[in-house]
Amino acid sequence: MKQSIDMVPKGKLIVVGGAVDKGSFTEEHDEKEVQKNFNFFERGILRRIITESAHNDHSRIEVITTASQVPEEVGHEYEKAFQYLGATNLGILGIKTREEANDEAINDRLAKADIVMFTGGDQLRLTSILGGTAFHRNLLSKYHHESVVIAGTSAGAAACSSNMIYQGSATEALLKGEVKITSGLGLINHVIIDTHFVHRGRIGRLFQAVVGNPMVLGIGLGEDTGLLITDGKKMEAVGSGLVILVDGRFINDTNLTEIELGEPISIEHLVVHVMAKGSLYDLETHKLIVHKASKNVLAKKIF
Amino acid sequence: MKQSIDMVPKGKLIVVGGAVDKGSFTEEHDEKEVQKNFNFFERGILRRIITESAHNDHSRIEVITTASQVPEEVGHEYEKAFQYLGATNLGILGIKTREEANDEAINDRLAKADIVMFTGGDQLRLTSILGGTAFHRNLLSKYHHESVVIAGTSAGAAACSSNMIYQGSATEALLKGEVKITSGLGLINHVIIDTHFVHRGRIGRLFQAVVGNPMVLGIGLGEDTGLLITDGKKMEAVGSGLVILVDGRFINDTNLTEIELGEPISIEHLVVHVMAKGSLYDLETHKLIVHKASKNVLAKKIF
Repeated sequence: MKQSIDMVPKGKLIVVGGAVDKGSFTEEHDEKEVQKNFNFFERGILRRIITESAHNDHSRIEVITTASQVPEEVGHEYEKAFQYLGATNLGILGIKTREEANDEAINDRLAKADIVMFTGGDQLRLTSILGGTAFHRNLLSKYHHESVVIAGTSAGAAACSSNMIYQGSATEALLKGEVKITSGLGLINHVIIDTHFVHRGRIGRLFQAVVGNPMVLGIGLGEDTGLLITDGKKMEAVGSGLVILVDGRFINDTNLTEIELGEPISIEHLVVHVMAKGSLYDLETHKLIVHKASKNVLAKKIF
Repeated sequence: MKQSIDMVPKGKLIVVGGAVDKGSFTEEHDEKEVQKNFNFFERGILRRIITESAHNDHSRIEVITTASQVPEEVGHEYEKAFQYLGATNLGILGIKTREEANDEAINDRLAKADIVMFTGGDQLRLTSILGGTAFHRNLLSKYHHESVVIAGTSAGAAACSSNMIYQGSATEALLKGEVKITSGLGLINHVIIDTHFVHRGRIGRLFQAVVGNPMVLGIGLGEDTGLLITDGKKMEAVGSGLVILVDGRFINDTNLTEIELGEPISIEHLVVHVMAKGSLYDLETHKLIVHKASKNVLAKKIF
């Protein structure tokens, strides 16, 4: 089904910046590490995913482990985490090939899901395995026409936007060409999402993504931090850390087109917003509403 | 001697963001690590310190190792690095106490220096040992009245401004009160300098420093990256990495005064500039001039 770019989606999107040291991509992380990485769910984001869904803890959940190289472990951990919160109607969709992504039985399961949760791993696995398959088309259609919650953490979050950063070290992120961008799953347009933002020093690579086309809003998600996006445009910060928004529409000057690949980029006048939990941003009006409620329970405990 | 805040200093200031993994503060780093940390000097910044000085490689250099807990090793490494570049007229001023900082012989050596180089370590050592001593007063006077080059790397850079960040982890940097600021050496006003900026994920702590008083320009120095500041206001980016400037004068809204200590801060509308090597920024006009020269030799080698 063809989607209009400006159509208001009925579904909700929850993108999460990942957890501390979530050693994706490799086979390295052991059971203990995987477990540690799920701590943050208990602190609110996973709970929010459940409460935003159509049937709360009775919702049908499908966990898509395609991004991970250790899908069984990761899937099992999500199962435990959701169960811990009382949501037991859960399946693991460990799609590993494009053939599976076109499989009818798998797409039937997608059709019945109230929550579709993309795990971390390598975002290029998500786009290269799912991109253009029946699963991908059905996911987009479902997002636009049903009150589904689509959630992604780390790679799963990065893959949601139309443009997706898939590589670019912190060191070299502001050398022209060092940040590698490709086409994401396209659940949300005109933004580019980067994750593990603060701890991995990725501010430079988000700047580079934005300067290339200032139409695109850069979204940097800290660890244990996310955005709930409703109506395809209303964004609410969730979790304990910070969301950084980079708005390049007012850039006055840059050397981007004058320099060669590998040379350092200068940029004059990026507008940056910092969103903590509860703050709201509208992608259409570009307006941030700062959340001012005080008397945080956690803060009281600490101080 | 009393200094007017608006007086144009005759001296030059060179602040450097430090080198990769320069494990300051502790006794941990061995000889090999110390050596590794000086690689960046060979790539241009130390050379620039020399060429900006009154007598080029004949200039008298005094290295102030006060910030370091391993002053002998650090001092020796600077000696080797300057010698490598042909600048051999060098002394190490390992001031360890306030008494030494008031000592006449030490202040006589300061008076004869063309380059005063502050090493890394803990910036609180610099301010607590030197603050208010004859050495500090003479340094300020010398900076204002003589064509001295005052350089600082890492802690030595952080201590240069009137406000100095001395602690605040990347994790908690946007929780109110988590960034600890005190009074720096005051060589430059209305800025706050943070170092090791990209790799240690410190964007949040600079944001916090700026939102507290948007009059202050936040300066984040990447590793192997610095600023040459002339006339107390003209800043030129030097080195291989990026300098990030955070201008808070146009902040529209924040929850800073509504929230309690330990609660997360939101900020609407920070203006951020990215300066690569050669770009210029004027602290008075707040104008960035982007450097556009292409055909970087290094880039040609890589690609």
